This record gives sequence, structure tokens and C-alpha cells, in this order.
Amino acid sequence: MSIGYSEQRLDATAKVTGRSRFTSDLIMPGTRIARYLRSKIAHGRITDIDTSAAKALPGVEAVFTFEDIPRTPFATAGHAYSLDPKGRDVEDRLLLTDYVRYHGDEIAIVVATDHLIAEQVLGLIKVTYDEYPPLLNHQQAMAEQAPLLHQQTSNKVAEHQYQLGNPDEAMHQADTTVSGNFQTQMVQHCHLENQIAMAYMDDTDHIVITSSTQIPHICRRIVAQALSWEMSRIRVVKPTVGGGFGNKQDVVLEPMVAFLTWKLGGIPVMIDLDREESMVSTRIRHPISVDIECGVNRDGTLKALTLDVVSNTGAYASHGHSIAKAAGSKLPPLYPKTAMRYKAMTHYSNLPAAGAMRGYGSPQIVFAVESIMEEAAHKIGMDSVEFRLRNVAQKGDMNPLTDKHITSCGIRECLIKGRERIGWDKKKEDYRHSNTPSENPSYNKRRGLGVACFSYGNGTYPAGVEIAGTRMVLNQDGRITVQVGATEIGQGSDTAIAQMAAEHLGVPFSAVHVVSAQDTDVTPFDPGSFASRQTYVISKPVSEAARELRQKILCYAAEMLNCPVSELTLRDGTVVTEAAESQTLTLKELAMDAYYHKQRGHQLTADVSRKTTTNASSFGCTFVEVEVDIELCQTTILNIINVHDAGKIINPVLAEGQVHGGIAMGLSGAMGEELLVNSETGTIYNNNLLDYKIATMPDMPDIGSDFVETTEPTSAYGAKSVGEPPLLSVAPAIRNAILDATGVAINRLPMSPKALFNAFREAHLIQEAN
Amino acid sequence: MSIGYSEQRLDATAKVTGRSRFTSDLIMPGTRIARYLRSKIAHGRITDIDTSAAKALPGVEAVFTFEDIPRTPFATAGHAYSLDPKGRDVEDRLLLTDYVRYHGDEIAIVVATDHLIAEQVLGLIKVTYDEYPPLLNHQQAMAEQAPLLHQQTSNKVAEHQYQLGNPDEAMHQADTTVSGNFQTQMVQHCHLENQIAMAYMDDTDHIVITSSTQIPHICRRIVAQALSWEMSRIRVVKPTVGGGFGNKQDVVLEPMVAFLTWKLGGIPVMIDLDREESMVSTRIRHPISVDIECGVNRDGTLKALTLDVVSNTGAYASHGHSIAKAAGSKLPPLYPKTAMRYKAMTHYSNLPAAGAMRGYGSPQIVFAVESIMEEAAHKIGMDSVEFRLRNVAQKGDMNPLTDKHITSCGIRECLIKGRERIGWDKKKEDYRHSNTPSENPSYNKRRGLGVACFSYGNGTYPAGVEIAGTRMVLNQDGRITVQVGATEIGQGSDTAIAQMAAEHLGVPFSAVHVVSAQDTDVTPFDPGSFASRQTYVISKPVSEAARELRQKILCYAAEMLNCPVSELTLRDGTVVTEAAESQTLTLKELAMDAYYHKQRGHQLTADVSRKTTTNASSFGCTFVEVEVDIELCQTTILNIINVHDAGKIINPVLAEGQVHGGIAMGLSGAMGEELLVNSETGTIYNNNLLDYKIATMPDMPDIGSDFVETTEPTSAYGAKSVGEPPLLSVAPAIRNAILDATGVAINRLPMSPKALFNAFREAHLIQEAN
Repeated sequence: MSIGYSEQRLDATAKVTGRSRFTSDLIMPGTRIARYLRSKIAHGRITDIDTSAAKALPGVEAVFTFEDIPRTPFATAGHAYSLDPKGRDVEDRLLLTDYVRYHGDEIAIVVATDHLIAEQVLGLIKVTYDEYPPLLNHQQAMAEQAPLLHQQTSNKVAEHQYQLGNPDEAMHQADTTVSGNFQTQMVQHCHLENQIAMAYMDDTDHIVITSSTQIPHICRRIVAQALSWEMSRIRVVKPTVGGGFGNKQDVVLEPMVAFLTWKLGGIPVMIDLDREESMVSTRIRHPISVDIECGVNRDGTLKALTLDVVSNTGAYASHGHSIAKAAGSKLPPLYPKTAMRYKAMTHYSNLPAAGAMRGYGSPQIVFAVESIMEEAAHKIGMDSVEFRLRNVAQKGDMNPLTDKHITSCGIRECLIKGRERIGWDKKKEDYRHSNTPSENPSYNKRRGLGVACFSYGNGTYPAGVEIAGTRMVLNQDGRITVQVGATEIGQGSDTAIAQMAAEHLGVPFSAVHVVSAQDTDVTPFDPGSFASRQTYVISKPVSEAARELRQKILCYAAEMLNCPVSELTLRDGTVVTEAAESQTLTLKELAMDAYYHKQRGHQLTADVSRKTTTNASSFGCTFVEVEVDIELCQTTILNIINVHDAGKIINPVLAEGQVHGGIAMGLSGAMGEELLVNSETGTIYNNNLLDYKIATMPDMPDIGSDFVETTEPTSAYGAKSVGEPPLLSVAPAIRNAILDATGVAINRLPMSPKALFNAFREAHLIQEAN
Repeated sequence: MSIGYSEQRLDATAKVTGRSRFTSDLIMPGTRIARYLRSKIAHGRITDIDTSAAKALPGVEAVFTFEDIPRTPFATAGHAYSLDPKGRDVEDRLLLTDYVRYHGDEIAIVVATDHLIAEQVLGLIKVTYDEYPPLLNHQQAMAEQAPLLHQQTSNKVAEHQYQLGNPDEAMHQADTTVSGNFQTQMVQHCHLENQIAMAYMDDTDHIVITSSTQIPHICRRIVAQALSWEMSRIRVVKPTVGGGFGNKQDVVLEPMVAFLTWKLGGIPVMIDLDREESMVSTRIRHPISVDIECGVNRDGTLKALTLDVVSNTGAYASHGHSIAKAAGSKLPPLYPKTAMRYKAMTHYSNLPAAGAMRGYGSPQIVFAVESIMEEAAHKIGMDSVEFRLRNVAQKGDMNPLTDKHITSCGIRECLIKGRERIGWDKKKEDYRHSNTPSENPSYNKRRGLGVACFSYGNGTYPAGVEIAGTRMVLNQDGRITVQVGATEIGQGSDTAIAQMAAEHLGVPFSAVHVVSAQDTDVTPFDPGSFASRQTYVISKPVSEAARELRQKILCYAAEMLNCPVSELTLRDGTVVTEAAESQTLTLKELAMDAYYHKQRGHQLTADVSRKTTTNASSFGCTFVEVEVDIELCQTTILNIINVHDAGKIINPVLAEGQVHGGIAMGLSGAMGEELLVNSETGTIYNNNLLDYKIATMPDMPDIGSDFVETTEPTSAYGAKSVGEPPLLSVAPAIRNAILDATGVAINRLPMSPKALFNAFREAHLIQEAN
């Protein structure tokens, strides 16, 4: 029995002792170093590129420009392939470009014997541009006379809308309405390990890529497409990954290293980005603007909700409109009885390319929705928790977008538990007094409470195919080796999978070894780590394979013991008779016989691949208590707690770890992070971790987390997603708490001291400096 | 249809362009270098070892002596484990020793940051020995007062005998008898790539070993035993291997690199032997002495054969008595109607340790048997081919040792074909004249013909367990990835396996990719490459897995096409209807649907592990034509041809390649190779490829090879072994040809000019020099 216990992460010791081996620790002898030459302008066309001096430098093996590359456009987004052409990502990318779409675009690549030479040679390439004004925002990009950044009829990537019920009529009939515009900023994932990939060609002329990726099997497909190779002639190996958060769900370096080794006769070639490149030239989170309106009745009924969403994907589509679309699909399961219209469009611009990032559009949309909920509650004079309790989903409700029942739902219990844990009612009452100048001598420091909630999915179905596989092997020593396509990228999935396997095998957790590195030649197929899908989607194949292997073990025991298999069971790694529970055979004894008996037996394995055609909803909420120093424009988080319905919790400590990470990331994005762009040139000012204000340990409050355990019937172990959800409701909860404390609504992220200063000044809370 | 075609080796291009990547090409950054301190005496005990100066040298990470190592003795021989303790190899080895058993024994090991420092530090270790006289041969080792080299009651490793019929009575009743003593020398495998192994510890504290080994799964077991670790906590990866010939069927370096990384906190550590170490301190071929007697009737009936075999295994048992035992078991299938006694013993000595080498004892025994056959034929005045034709096995004969029928046998046809191809009858007649001084002016150059035959096995059953496994995956592009535990070490097994898989899948050879590297965490279990077992033992799991995957493919096609599966078949990579043979679905179309259809399908795989409880006999013979220059004592091979019954030939060109390699190796061992030992000190004089006279290209005659194809019913594709057999009968055929040419019998290998000089002088063919 392993499910529900806080087993120690399989890689805990290696991680804390610094012994984990990442891609850069696995570089082969003689590996050549490749570096990109990046554009120094944000928008324009290259009229001339002179590489002659560069190619003559000793130690330079090759210089390739946009003239040397395959002409097959490809999409970099890490989605499982779609049989429906309309379901595929936008193929707008070549390995190198002569049309520059953002400051940092890849226009050439050099291969040298070491990093120093590679760096030096970049300076010897002479580039002449025809420069155009950068299109940075919606207005510029969608202007009628705007130049087209790609071969399309406009700079719009895509748009869509859905409508549930009759939102216009419901809005009209509602007792009152509130509306607003909410905007989120460009932020970056800032995973510890920058992107890195190495490739070489093996004895059979296959290209072998080692890469820090979330999606080895998808990477294989995209590289094959980019090079027009057969897919099985590409092999992708994923070793230990130092964080991804969605950024490594894009295939950014792999097609290029594959191309380079192919062109250079199979020698190993590596690209390892530096932090500056990683921050600007990989992917960022989409800045999104939401016009939102909400209709409510005095009794607290949320009648109507309409959103008009504009998403800026930057220079390349990457995940493109999927982000805005996916985010929209998460609203109906949370407020299923409300008439809704969700309208969204995504456009290109000359900003860095946006892609997947933890939450996949939801943080932006939830910021708007949960802010407007607060406004609505204020408007009708209802407590914000109470208001949400009146409108959120319950188990058995129909998700009006999919016409499927919500099969588990604990959001009401989450709200009640969070309210209790933060001391909502009492503090609300206290702060009503303390935020009144006459009642509080230190009135400059005001306190407030905020709440926000969310729902989220478990994988991409029905938008995408959901498939996962696992293979299990009984080893000679009785331990079980488990291969999965699901990729451990730091979230702890290997550990959760080991617990699931142990549970249904009937062996101790310590007897399970999960092969952590994926290798597309031998690893069961699974698209990888994204969409908080893994624990949910793999639960069935893991459960099935565990039960199948268990049955094979028992049948073999029956053969060895010459007794009916029905009398045997496997408990804690030992075959025992059901009746007497007397020990009969250890797994090691059985395994040694299966491997080494001369006449009978064979290696006992189970190999299961399954598709999932369900998608559960996870739920949760954030409660925040803040103290805002009005004069210093500084917000202190006094208390923050997330309460999640993530179904059955496989490993409480690891689930809590996800909540801690999610809150930290959400808080940092809410309070300080922003990639700052020069509005004239399109250059990013702060492409480094000194100038980019990401929260670090000293910025963190104590973080609270709690769970309302439900049992999701479509998940083999009852579990639901907990990877991305913890950050979704953090920013609006803080925004609502600041509003509660100060009466000032901050509707654009980040809510930095600078933003508060402007808002407070506008609200006349502070005076203009003389 | 791929079986029987000379498909190009999968690794052909990589091998001839030098692009193959061996273990040394995969060394991780920061890998430390370990080197052994080897004894400078052949026999003695270390009384003091001072490592203080060594440990103080900058760049030295560690020095370990026999005092620092685990005390669990282990066996290094690469056999599958036996559940019967009596079936296991002799556990006489520790990682390091203080009792020195041969010149080169491992007494300490140093770990340094690079090779130079490692070499330098060895000179700083001071060793004091108590030295004893070396025991080098049978007489010295088995003398009553001889010191015991291991913890046993004598220096005998083991002995055994079998008896078939009543050989004493048959010998007595025979018309005549012949007898002799035959001796073979110490030779070494001289694979191109020396032994090399690297180890590190992964994120889960498992030890990962990359090694040039023939036996990754066995290696895992032995390392686990040597370190007293659980077996599944050891992972062994076998990349491209530069030859093994049995020497890499011993686990020589892997336990030590595993020990070192364990003790040094998981850092990568490598041992790469130099040629001098590889030639003396890995394994050699057992020098064997055979007293043999043979009783024949005038009509050519071979009535009786008795052998008394003494095998010198040197300092450590390694494969020990298995070699002499296995070799003995190959005689009855060749001469099944002859009464036999085979008696053998193996003893320790202070020579380098002997182990497995291509032929596994058979070259030594066949040398004795096929030489005495020649003597017998001469004695009764019968043609040597005719004599053999009277006595060799036929299909349906009973193997009296196993009481099983010989299920395929083409040795008679081989002899007839060989006789025809070399022009035996005419040349015999010609040479009778030319070898008469009066009829030939250039009588000093005499020509002769020789023949010898053999039988050989297919794996180790029933001595050992025989098991093999394979996993097959249908890739998105319709190509098939095949994983096997069978190890490609240069013999071409991957290619043969791909052909077998293609045949029963119904896809073109080019659509099959065999994963060439084994990784014990994920590779189906199979003990590895030895005993010419692989093609035979893996044929059933490959055939079964191919048929299973084919059936899954057809069932999925039936689901896609909505038609009965019985109407479909898979031909040349396309699903067609049985009736009309109209194309309906390519494998790629089917695979894309299986992977990416949102509702149906899954990854199609097959995973099969099977034991083999049969063992077929292969047969063959060598025909040789020589010209011997009496005065120069030089033998020129004018013609040499092997004719094999290896069952159905999977790939004619690769089979011929095995024959070329086997004849070359056999010829080199017959004519020149010998590790020369100083009889006083036990030192090997010629531990390098300058002084050790291995044959090279200029020494090679044109090599002929031919096959008599039979169909072996116990093999899924009818194939039998062709890996080791080609060298077995080479030496006696040459010996018999020299005898035919000169009348002089050379009964000790090698038949070098020096040996011929002594023999010719003794026979008064040449005069003593003044």
C-alpha cells in the first residue's frame, strides 16, 4: 500500500547533493559547439550576409545561414500530432530565417571546436539589414497597412469563440453588471537549466539527440518533419531535466543540432543556450488583454459572463491560439450554470515568441475572471467567498462545453476549508475597523483579504489525443523495473508512478525502479510532460500493466508450487496463499526460477499502451492576506494558502511541493516579474536574472497548502492534476486582497511597487511628489 | 522475404568509415582514470604495500589495495546463473589480491584525474613480496607438495568423464589402434578493441556501467554478486563492441569500476586496458594436452576412441573445467557410432588465466581427434575422406551423449563437396608422384592435402539455461524497432535478427531497425553472445514476436477498414486483402492512426521471452592444400576451404564472413601464434602485437567457403551455428596436409617454422647445421 503516503522522491538525494546528471554532464568526447548568430533588430529583412571571414577562422567547422537549410516549414509546439489538419500547430518556422521577426531571431549558426571560438566567430559575420518598424502590440500588428510577418493574409494567427446559453439576454436580465479590462505581462519560465541539446549519428545513420526536453517523443516527430527524415530514424533521449514549466514543451534546439550533425558527417554537435538567449529566444508567456463583463443578480447568482481575449504570440506561432483556446475551456466547469461567451484571437507581433507556460493561458484568464468576480461581489454587497459558493460547480453538474458530467468536484469544500484556515470571517471584521483611519493609528499600513478560484484540466483530450504507455519487468532480485514515456522533469512524476505501480502489483514502494530517462527507441510512447496530464493519463496503463504482471507472477508461482492460482495472492512482495496468509515464495525466489530454471519460465514482463478518452476537472482556490504599505507602495503577503481538489492525493509531500512551487511562481509573476520591452526598437531590456525581478527565497512568505480529497472515477487511482493548478488563482487573490485593503483595483500585472505607486497616486492615496 | 539474402550489414557504413562509436567514444565529462598496479612476480604473497607517497600525489583521487575491497569471492565467467550450485562457476576471485597467482595479477588500483597521473602514481607504490617458485604446468601444479593456489585441497579445478558403449572392449576388438599425444599452446583473442569499462551512479543510486562486453545481463549479475548489491541496482550498457571472441565473455573490469564509483560518491570512473594488459591480464585460450587412442577396423570402421585431456586454466578458474567439458560433448554427434571415453581434468597454475575463446575447447580437442583420425586412415591404408565418410553422423542418428536424435546433418555432403571443390582425388594422385624425389626436380617443395571435420553446438543447453527475448514496436512511419538481448559484437547478429524479423512480419528488411546497444534496464533478457547461440536461441522469440505484432497490425487494420481480419495479410509492408491483393493500407497510414486517432488505437508492440530446450549440432570440415618448403621450414597454404552445414543460411555474405574470420583465426593459431612464457619466472615474453605473431592480411591465402544447407527443425528459421565453427577444423587439416606432404606429423601447435625445423631435423629431412 503506497498510494497516499509521502514516499521520498526517487531522486531526492541526487538532487540535494548536486549529483544529478543533466544533458551537459553527458556530452560525448569531441563534441562540437554550435552557437546562433541572432538578429540585432526586431523587424526587417537581411539583404546581405558575409560569412567568409568567419569560415576562415581556425577552429571553425562550419557556418550555415538561411541559404543552407531545408525549406520545410515546421511547428515547434509540443503537441501530439493530429490526424485532422485543422488540429495541427501552425508551421511557420524554418531552421534559420532571412526575415527577422524579433530582436534575437536566428539568422545563422556557427560550429566550432569550443565555446570561445564559437563566440569569437559570431563577431566576424557581417549582416546588412533592411530594417522595418517593429509591430509590438495588437494595434500595431493588426493595423490595416501593417506588413505581414508570415505568409498569411493578416497578422492574425487564429480566432475562435464559444457561447453557452444566451449570454446577451442573461446579461440584459441580470440585476447589475460589472466590466473591466485586464492585462497580463510577458514573463519567462526561468527554469534553472537552460535549453541544451546534443546530436550525433549512430552506426545505422540514425540521428541520436540528447536534450533537456519535456517531450521526447514529440521532439522526434518534429525533428523528422523539419529535416524531412523518417521519424524512426530520429532517436531522442531525455536525461534528468532541470525544469521546464512548458518552455521545454517547444522543440527549439533539437531540429538544428540534428541538422548540424547530419551535415557534418555524424559528429556530435551541441547547442547550449546561455541565460540571455534562454530568456528571449526560447518562449515566453503570452501577454493577454481581456475585456470582460459579468452580470449578477442581487441574490448572488452569476447570470452571465463574456470575455473578449486578445493574445499576443510574438514572432512565431509556437502554441499559438491553443493557449487562449485552452484557457477558455477551463471556465465552464467552474461556473457551469452561467451563460457565457468566450471570444479570443491571437496575433503575431515582433515580440519574442510566446509558448506554453505553466497554466497555459489560464493564469491570464483567471486573473480577469476572478477579478471581475470580486467586483461583482462588491457591487451586490456580498461576501466574495459566499458569492463564489453560490455559483461554483458541484459533482454531477454538466460541463456545458463538453456535455459531460463533472465526475468529481470539491471546490465548495475547498472554499469553505480555505475560509476557515485563513480566519476569513474574523479578519474581515477586524480589518473593516483597522482600515478606517479613525480606528487605526497606523492606517498607512492596511490589511486585506482576497480569494480566487479556478478549474483546470487533466491532459488535452478532446482537443488532442491522449495516450500513455508503460512496460514493467520483474528482475532477478524481485524488484520491478518500470519504463514510462511520461517524463520526469522535476515535478516528481517518477515517484508517483512508482507508488501507483507498487500499489497494484502488491510490492513495496522500494521494490520499484522507474527508468527516469526516456529514449524514443525503447520507451513506451507518451507525448510527455504538459497539460498536467501525466498522473491522470498514465494511471490506466500503469494500473493495467501492474495487474497483468501481478497475474503473470501468480500464474508462475502456481506452476512452481503446483497449486491453483486462485489460492495465491501477492502481498508486500511475497506470494502468499489467500487462505492461510502463509508465506510461500518471495518474489526473488520466483524470479530466479523464472530466469534460470532450465526447462520452464521466461522473463516476466507487461507492456501496456492505452488512450484516455476522458478529461476530469481539478479545482482549487487561493486565499491571501496582505498588508499594503501605502506610502512605500509595498505589499507584504501575510498569509497565503491554496486549497486543492486534486482528487486522491498520491503523495502528500510531493503534492504540497507542487503547491509551494506554484504559489511561488504565481506570486512572483503577480508581484514583480516582467520582460520589459523598448517600445521603439522591440529590444528586451532585462534579458538576465539580475534585471529580471524573479522572486527568490527571501521574497517568499510561509506558504500554506491543503487538500480536499475527492475520488475521480475516470482516473485509475482517483487522482487529478496538481502540476499547473497551484499558480492559477494566486495573482487575482492577491489583487483582490490589495483591493480589499486599499480600495484600489490593480488590473494589470505585475502589481509591482511602481504599478501601485501609479494606481495609488491616481486614487489620491498618495500625493504627487513635488 | 529476407531470409537467405545477402542484406548489407546494418553497421557496414559506420564500420568502414570509422564512424562507429565504441565505449571510449562515450566517456562522460569529468571521468576519472583508474589503473591497476600489477604484480611483478608470478607467484607469492605480498608482505607489505605502501601507498602513502602515491596518495599524496596531486591529481590522485584514491588508491585501493586488497585491504579495501569486499571479501565476497565471485566467478568472472560469463555463464547464465545456475539454480544448481554444482552448475555454477568457481568463485575464486576478489577485486584485488594479496596472494599473487600470475605475473600481472591485480594487487592495487589507483584513480586519478588523467592517464598520465595514473601511470605516474603506479610507480610510487612500494610492494614487498614473499616470492614462491611458479607452478606453470601440470606436473608442477599437481605435484604432491605443490603449494595450493586457492582455498582447495589440490590445484585441480575439476575433472569429469563420460563413457559411451564399452570403449575398452571395442579398442581391444579393433583390427588395429593408433595413439598419440597432442598439445596446444596459449593464444590470445587479440580483439581490436581492448577491454574498457566506465561506471557512475545515477540519480537513484544505481550503478550504471558502460562496457565493451559480450554479456551485459550476465555482467549485471556478477557485478551485483561481487559488490553484494541487489542485481537490479546495477545497470549495464553495451555499445558497439570492437570484437570479443570469448574474451569479453568474462567480467574482468566491470566489478572494479562499479566498486570505484560506489566508493567515490558516484563520479564516473573508467578503466581502459592497454594492449599489454589485455594480452596477459584478461583471458587466454587454455593450453590443453590430449592423450588419445583410436581403434579401427580394416574396413574403415571407427570402433573406439578414448581421450585423456589435461587443461591448464592458469591463475584463476574463469570458465574453468567448462571448457574441457564442453569440448568433449561435441564429439559424439560427429562420430555417434563409436564407443568412446572422454576423461578430462583442469588444473590451476601460475600462468595467465584462461577463459572462453572462439571454439571453447573444441579447437584443442578437434586438433587431437582429427589428427588421430588421419593416423588411423593411414594405418589402414584408406583415403582420409573416405574414412571419415564411413564414420560421421547422419540425420536421424542418436547422439549417444544426450539420447536425442540428430535432427539435421549434412556432414557427409560437406565432405563430398569439399573433396570435389579442392580437387582431392586428382591432386592426391598428382602429389604421390611429385613427392617422390625421382619424379620431381623441385622435390624440396612438397605438396599435400589435409582434411578435418567437426561438430559443434548451438548454445549451452542442457548444460546451461537458454533464454532469449525480443520486443518489437511499430513506429509512426511504419518501420519496426526491434530490441533484443542478443549482443552484436561484430559478428553481424543484428542484421540476421533484422532479416528474421522482416521475414515473419511481412515487411522489407529496410523497414527493420535493431537497437544495437543493450541496456539491462530495458533490454529483453538474454545472457549474450557466446556458444554460437544467438541466431539459434533467439529465432523462436523473434519469430513469435514478429507473428504477434503482425497479427496485432492486421487486427488494427480490420478495425480501421471494418472488415474481417481473416481477409487481410501483410506483405512487403502493406496491408492487402488476401483475395484481391489490392493495396488497402500502408503500415505508415495504419501506424499514424494507431498513435494519433483520438478514440481508438494504441502503440502496437510485442514482447516475447522464451527458453530453448533443444540444442542442434552444426557440422563442417576444412580441406587444405599446402606446399612445404623443407629447407626453409615454411608452409604455404595453396588452398583452404571450409564447407559447413549451418542449417539454413540467413545471410550468405555474413555467413561467409564468419568463415573467413574463423579460418583466418584458425590458421593464425595453427601456424604462428603463441604466448611465450619464461619457464623460470612465469613472465610472458611477448605481451604485445609486435612480438606476438598474429597473422595479418599479407599472411592470408585466398579463403574458400561453401555451405550444405539443411533445415534444422528446432530452429525457427532452420538455421544453425556458424560463429565459432569455422576455426575448429583448420589446424588439424593443415597438420594433416603437412603430414601428407612431408610424412612428418606435427602434434603440437603452433606449426611454426621453428617447430617444423625441429621436427624435420628429427625426421632427418634436413641436416643439423654445422
